[in-house]
Amino acid sequence: MSLPILDEPRTPFDGFRDECGVVGIWGHAEAANLAYLGLHALQHRGQEGAGIVASDGLQLRAMRGQGLVADVFRDRDALEALAGSRAIGHVRYSTAGGNEAANVQPLMVRYGGGGLAIAHNGNYVNARSVREELEAEGAIFQSSSDTEVLVHLVARSRQRSFVNRVVDALARVQGAGSVLVLTERMMLATRDPHGFRPLVLGQLPGGGWVFASETPALDLIGATFVRDLSPGEVVVVDQDGLTSFHPFPRTKPRACIFEYVYFSRPDTMLWGKDVYSVRRELGRRLAQEQPCDVDMVLPVPDSGVAAALGFAREIQAPFELGLIRNHYVGRSFIEPNQRIRDFGVKLKLNPVPGLLTGQRVAVVDDSLVRGTTCRKIVRLLRAAGVAEVHLRIAAPPTVGPCWYGIDTPTREELIASRNEIEEIGRFVGADSIGYLSLQGLHAAVHEGEDGFCDACFSGQYPVLHDDLQRGPQLPLFAEST
Amino acid sequence: MSLPILDEPRTPFDGFRDECGVVGIWGHAEAANLAYLGLHALQHRGQEGAGIVASDGLQLRAMRGQGLVADVFRDRDALEALAGSRAIGHVRYSTAGGNEAANVQPLMVRYGGGGLAIAHNGNYVNARSVREELEAEGAIFQSSSDTEVLVHLVARSRQRSFVNRVVDALARVQGAGSVLVLTERMMLATRDPHGFRPLVLGQLPGGGWVFASETPALDLIGATFVRDLSPGEVVVVDQDGLTSFHPFPRTKPRACIFEYVYFSRPDTMLWGKDVYSVRRELGRRLAQEQPCDVDMVLPVPDSGVAAALGFAREIQAPFELGLIRNHYVGRSFIEPNQRIRDFGVKLKLNPVPGLLTGQRVAVVDDSLVRGTTCRKIVRLLRAAGVAEVHLRIAAPPTVGPCWYGIDTPTREELIASRNEIEEIGRFVGADSIGYLSLQGLHAAVHEGEDGFCDACFSGQYPVLHDDLQRGPQLPLFAEST
Amino acid sequence: MSLPILDEPRTPFDGFRDECGVVGIWGHAEAANLAYLGLHALQHRGQEGAGIVASDGLQLRAMRGQGLVADVFRDRDALEALAGSRAIGHVRYSTAGGNEAANVQPLMVRYGGGGLAIAHNGNYVNARSVREELEAEGAIFQSSSDTEVLVHLVARSRQRSFVNRVVDALARVQGAGSVLVLTERMMLATRDPHGFRPLVLGQLPGGGWVFASETPALDLIGATFVRDLSPGEVVVVDQDGLTSFHPFPRTKPRACIFEYVYFSRPDTMLWGKDVYSVRRELGRRLAQEQPCDVDMVLPVPDSGVAAALGFAREIQAPFELGLIRNHYVGRSFIEPNQRIRDFGVKLKLNPVPGLLTGQRVAVVDDSLVRGTTCRKIVRLLRAAGVAEVHLRIAAPPTVGPCWYGIDTPTREELIASRNEIEEIGRFVGADSIGYLSLQGLHAAVHEGEDGFCDACFSGQYPVLHDDLQRGPQLPLFAEST
Amino acid sequence: MSLPILDEPRTPFDGFRDECGVVGIWGHAEAANLAYLGLHALQHRGQEGAGIVASDGLQLRAMRGQGLVADVFRDRDALEALAGSRAIGHVRYSTAGGNEAANVQPLMVRYGGGGLAIAHNGNYVNARSVREELEAEGAIFQSSSDTEVLVHLVARSRQRSFVNRVVDALARVQGAGSVLVLTERMMLATRDPHGFRPLVLGQLPGGGWVFASETPALDLIGATFVRDLSPGEVVVVDQDGLTSFHPFPRTKPRACIFEYVYFSRPDTMLWGKDVYSVRRELGRRLAQEQPCDVDMVLPVPDSGVAAALGFAREIQAPFELGLIRNHYVGRSFIEPNQRIRDFGVKLKLNPVPGLLTGQRVAVVDDSLVRGTTCRKIVRLLRAAGVAEVHLRIAAPPTVGPCWYGIDTPTREELIASRNEIEEIGRFVGADSIGYLSLQGLHAAVHEGEDGFCDACFSGQYPVLHDDLQRGPQLPLFAEST
Repeated sequence: MSLPILDEPRTPFDGFRDECGVVGIWGHAEAANLAYLGLHALQHRGQEGAGIVASDGLQLRAMRGQGLVADVFRDRDALEALAGSRAIGHVRYSTAGGNEAANVQPLMVRYGGGGLAIAHNGNYVNARSVREELEAEGAIFQSSSDTEVLVHLVARSRQRSFVNRVVDALARVQGAGSVLVLTERMMLATRDPHGFRPLVLGQLPGGGWVFASETPALDLIGATFVRDLSPGEVVVVDQDGLTSFHPFPRTKPRACIFEYVYFSRPDTMLWGKDVYSVRRELGRRLAQEQPCDVDMVLPVPDSGVAAALGFAREIQAPFELGLIRNHYVGRSFIEPNQRIRDFGVKLKLNPVPGLLTGQRVAVVDDSLVRGTTCRKIVRLLRAAGVAEVHLRIAAPPTVGPCWYGIDTPTREELIASRNEIEEIGRFVGADSIGYLSLQGLHAAVHEGEDGFCDACFSGQYPVLHDDLQRGPQLPLFAEST
Repeated sequence: MSLPILDEPRTPFDGFRDECGVVGIWGHAEAANLAYLGLHALQHRGQEGAGIVASDGLQLRAMRGQGLVADVFRDRDALEALAGSRAIGHVRYSTAGGNEAANVQPLMVRYGGGGLAIAHNGNYVNARSVREELEAEGAIFQSSSDTEVLVHLVARSRQRSFVNRVVDALARVQGAGSVLVLTERMMLATRDPHGFRPLVLGQLPGGGWVFASETPALDLIGATFVRDLSPGEVVVVDQDGLTSFHPFPRTKPRACIFEYVYFSRPDTMLWGKDVYSVRRELGRRLAQEQPCDVDMVLPVPDSGVAAALGFAREIQAPFELGLIRNHYVGRSFIEPNQRIRDFGVKLKLNPVPGLLTGQRVAVVDDSLVRGTTCRKIVRLLRAAGVAEVHLRIAAPPTVGPCWYGIDTPTREELIASRNEIEEIGRFVGADSIGYLSLQGLHAAVHEGEDGFCDACFSGQYPVLHDDLQRGPQLPLFAEST
Repeated sequence: MSLPILDEPRTPFDGFRDECGVVGIWGHAEAANLAYLGLHALQHRGQEGAGIVASDGLQLRAMRGQGLVADVFRDRDALEALAGSRAIGHVRYSTAGGNEAANVQPLMVRYGGGGLAIAHNGNYVNARSVREELEAEGAIFQSSSDTEVLVHLVARSRQRSFVNRVVDALARVQGAGSVLVLTERMMLATRDPHGFRPLVLGQLPGGGWVFASETPALDLIGATFVRDLSPGEVVVVDQDGLTSFHPFPRTKPRACIFEYVYFSRPDTMLWGKDVYSVRRELGRRLAQEQPCDVDMVLPVPDSGVAAALGFAREIQAPFELGLIRNHYVGRSFIEPNQRIRDFGVKLKLNPVPGLLTGQRVAVVDDSLVRGTTCRKIVRLLRAAGVAEVHLRIAAPPTVGPCWYGIDTPTREELIASRNEIEEIGRFVGADSIGYLSLQGLHAAVHEGEDGFCDACFSGQYPVLHDDLQRGPQLPLFAEST
Repeated sequence: MSLPILDEPRTPFDGFRDECGVVGIWGHAEAANLAYLGLHALQHRGQEGAGIVASDGLQLRAMRGQGLVADVFRDRDALEALAGSRAIGHVRYSTAGGNEAANVQPLMVRYGGGGLAIAHNGNYVNARSVREELEAEGAIFQSSSDTEVLVHLVARSRQRSFVNRVVDALARVQGAGSVLVLTERMMLATRDPHGFRPLVLGQLPGGGWVFASETPALDLIGATFVRDLSPGEVVVVDQDGLTSFHPFPRTKPRACIFEYVYFSRPDTMLWGKDVYSVRRELGRRLAQEQPCDVDMVLPVPDSGVAAALGFAREIQAPFELGLIRNHYVGRSFIEPNQRIRDFGVKLKLNPVPGLLTGQRVAVVDDSLVRGTTCRKIVRLLRAAGVAEVHLRIAAPPTVGPCWYGIDTPTREELIASRNEIEEIGRFVGADSIGYLSLQGLHAAVHEGEDGFCDACFSGQYPVLHDDLQRGPQLPLFAEST
């Protein structure tokens, strides 16, 4: 699945979904600065907004804004004003229609016990009902984010200790949440009991602690990987050091299998495996299940590269980078009035001339969502003289939206939710099409089926969503910028 | 009193004071556009932030930011996206140390009953205690503004009708508040029972209603002035039209006399009088009380012009614009490293050469706060060859800070709070100094003393402040931008 | 004449006219910084672009851009990178259609002898013919400015010494030019033989020299006024000190009388008189020539204030600031779609309510150009209840455009060039109208008629313009920004 | 050779070198828009500035600025103001110390015959002497670019026809120049007689003509490749259609071999070959010449990918993307104060964990310039547990700077100019190092040696440079921005 391109904007299915990345630094003189670098390494997890809250033990200070990390933190002086040896940071991929400015995280509030900042990666499926309960009790909401729900729950908890308040609040929400909490005096990190989203613990050379969504954030700042947080684990760091406990009833882990398929970086060490090797294995199994007789194997860059390598090796056909990606594509690109055929995809991809003429090619991508980009790629290849195009997808058909923190199109927009595989092949114009089986996916990931959430491929949702009973909800307010 | 200049930054006395301006439009196809123009006419009441929330009957939409009105609303498309025939707007003069971005108004939240936006001009003296009570009940605060306190009170009220909830909330706060409230379905406007800050009602040619802090906002958009809201009045506009009621116990009105002295525009019709004529009368009475034998009368531009005209006319000396003001002075001015004497004031004011040599001049200003600018002006005039400088202030000595919504220096910084008048004269270097008496001020305003709040001149505060018992409070969090 | 307002953009009569301001600093460690402050004091002479070139004796360094001085020089580090003890600066009021970016001054080039920077205030009437001659010889032009013509003439001169080259070049051009030239080793300042535009010499406390268009630039940086440069004078400053000479044949001086009427700051000491007092005297003489029986005299702020004071004093009627000016009007103002009557002028001016009802008023302005703004002001006053409006203009009718460096409308747009005075009065809707006579103007300025250029009032142009024979010229290229 | 990264800024060897890209459109209603897209496809050839000049047959209009294409042309309205069916565009990689703003191309001037715009890719080795001759004749220069020299030569030519003037001018300069010229009435395209830099001709579906540095510019706008321009060819397009001629004496072609090695896009069809396949062949021959016994082959992404594929295939070892590139690296990145080892390279590259532990790897890059980045990559790999690192460079040692339009370090900074290959291997810390031979390079490109310029590898410069006799030159002026 390629990132969204110009003429094919993602239509988010409602105003509550977003994929995000979080990082936390405890015990380093340049905490905000390291958080900034960590966010940079997590930029692929959210490009619409970024923020950092730092603590010097007395006061919380925030800097948050819309755009890429490098845009939000342009000003070195402002970044250095985030004083203190503790900081949490957040990147987000926002959804249309939401209150943009108010949704940028970490959320920072004052409540009875002092200041409180929260950075959250995931999505709570019962956020709407809990919010309505809270509203009925007089709570006010300035954003549409799950995180504000969590903050209210912390503030209203009857528990006395701060950690118990947070646990109390977490017990009220259901769904996906890797969460970092910062107060003047402590930091708390947790993965929800199903463990949908990743969260790792690392250590700095000087002894400080790091939490991050993915390991490349540790690599960049020179921290050592310690371990993944377990599903349902709560880790607290304060002046007494690091404490871990498991306050929630044990449930089946449901790590997001799509993190392996597409979302995480290839250089991430995720739940014990490096993502690159998993994707290459997905390609290898795909080749076993759906071989084809071709002259060469082309990846859709950059998403399909690792799978295409595995695929090519298995069928013993040459791997070629026959589609070249232009990395300069900006956000707001001025399109000519006189439409150029397949303009959007041409802005990003161009075939190598000569190489492809008269060739039979397999094109490998990591996943197929709506099929429109893929259709344009097939047309580009045909125009470059390719004789046969065999499309291979290193994942099963995507049949359902994600409710646990990845922004996906609606079910209706997912081409595989309403078409047979052969129809999809005809739509994209390929000579043949092949998907990896669900079994193949799980085998590549090497775990029994119940260790992962594969809802987007299987339609089996481990936790049901509020909206199923009640239908989607209109945003109540919106902010321009 | 001149606006702050470069080398003399105002030091606000704590984090809760700000003077603001508000405007509301009901029943016009271009409501947000008219609110924008109205804010422009109120720009002098707040130059640090601006915002508009509009309603189309179904949804609230906001656009808010830091800077001047023209900076925040640069983008016509974004302004036009604020759809609907109802809108409220706000300009603010923020105080240092506060959470800048979060404090920009109107505040827009979602609570049990739907969306709610509030724009507030004033300051509640018991905001801190009420906030602490609310926090004890689990409320969370994202800013340090009084307005957020008010919103929580509305959300938690046990009253059933929305209007009663607002009235219930207003009954809990004490101090100054001219407030506009907007929901999807109605607009509410109110002045606190003392009526500290102004708020007027106007009507558009097509029949729509306008609320505004000052009448020039009506003038600019072609609306007709209808009347001042009364102290304690609540006006509700909805589909059934405009309703007024007085739910609060009657108390003595305490309109801010400083609005006449300095804050309001000269072309404002304020509580039955035009401000320009009041200021000219202040100058006339000052001349009667504190005459002097001079060759000419100079105003400190632009604040002292009307008073100087009245003064000059009364003592029958020529009025001359002998100090020329440079209107291009920006916010961030690069000062040379090698200091130039009186550089800051020179950036803004320059004497007319020739005119002043050997002359005895009276210099008239509207008020005197810390005396440092005035001292520089006296030096400028002496350097220009003036023979005698007689300083005349068209208000009594400023002895106390304002607690009701005007950002003022601390008591210690007010030169008149710790010096005899003669000492002030020596400090600024004038040959003589004269202030208007408190009686003269009230006589010019033509009301009995109890109709106005003159606390900054008399030290008699109509409503006491939280902080008096407990000392000032540190900000708990801060946001960089 | 008021500055241009929103709905009444100035239409420049061709692409070559601009009014500008220049400043030069020689012999101060912070030369660029002082030039920056000097430009700030001259900001009224040009608001479209600004630039500084500094020399450290070895290399010239430039910083130039479009916008106000404070916009162009936002970055202190960049300003400080303009190293050296010598600098020249320029502000400009650009004309539409010209090559904006390329026209920003000082122009800096490399030619045979090294680096060369020029800042020019004025307009050469034969620039077009000289440019065409130069083009015929193979010269290339990157802008449409006169200054580039001058630079080519310097570069092509057969003279050996640099000063003689400049003199040689100046001898080729006709019209208005107060010019500053900077090379790695010297600075040269000159006024053209007619002396159309001002240029003064001042001295810094530490002994350095300052050149500036107007004296407030000296005042702001603490320099002492030494003297006006004479018409035709060339002043050279280098390591040997300051030298003055008069290389051009003597001709009649033709100082621009409009500098007194409108363009210069009131606090400028111009050719021996302070501008403020001259304008007051213009008002006094206007009252003698065109008295009226009124209840009060109102200036059009800020342009008519000094004249209105003189007028009011002479007819012994009260001077009142009955029209209040809003100083926050920005450049790009979003106008409502539903037009508000006289919207543009309302954005800038608002009558004081109450003061004017039933009154007979004289409205005094410094000059009348197209009459459309004035017409709106009269309507505003009538709407405010004024009984009679008597318009008085403290200058003669403006009948011709300026060819010597002030950007003016075309002759056709000048209301007085094609209407009798009574028709103008009817157009603007005044009950009476009166202009100052040409004799009165000259008498106020206290010089014989031949000391000044009064072409815009008399139609007598001291130097004829290229375009008269050949018609105006289309711009050959344009640059967007 | 990787693009420059944070802590390793390129030091250009003087102020005249830049690599650039050009595009020209003739005969399309949206010429400027297509030029904009073409520049986008050429963005890799210059990221410091961009510009377009369009002609509607009467007037030239320019839009130029510093930054990426998407930054310079943010404003659709401004782009659309570049009216006309003809346009030329330019991207540039500027050199430090030059007059940035003035150097942005296309250069647009007015000379005797009208308007003239030039976009130039290349570098004239005798620009300095010609400029000095021109200066001696009175020419002025506003930039330090070769292009301004060319414009002066055109303007001063004694030839009567415009085309002959351009030819006359081109005959005076020596070195590299693929040039596009636009006047109100025609477009001219040319490659210098040695043909150092590429330039191709294409045709639009509607019949219009396109010139571009590389074929992907044609691909993006849907144009068909027609042919390369020949060395020394001049193509003129005007109302009579397209004419080609060869006015210069024939000389040996010297196409830049480095375009194949690094500079051109892999999807470019360059001089009859696709660049991707050439690079893969370079890798194959490298493997034949410098084989090694490894477990896997890693490219330095993205520059070494194609060569690494060829290398891996030849030695029959697996190709793995073991170093992951972060494409979000911005220009101004805030580095922590406490240095992180190899921070700069970590920002861009991160090894895949697990994959590399204990492995013997070959690392393949396209070229090696200073060796410092490579040394960091070796350290990164060792830290990731790699057992052996064998560095393979798919080009010969880089021993000399380029004088023909590619910005390169000085000879002293080129590690291969002063070290034996073994020393380089020790410096970068590799277990072995191997370069492709010069013969191998030529064989891969499949031409006799004299068809290409290989000066950077061989030290044999086909045309000598001015500066050799006279030493480098200091910039005479500088512009801040």
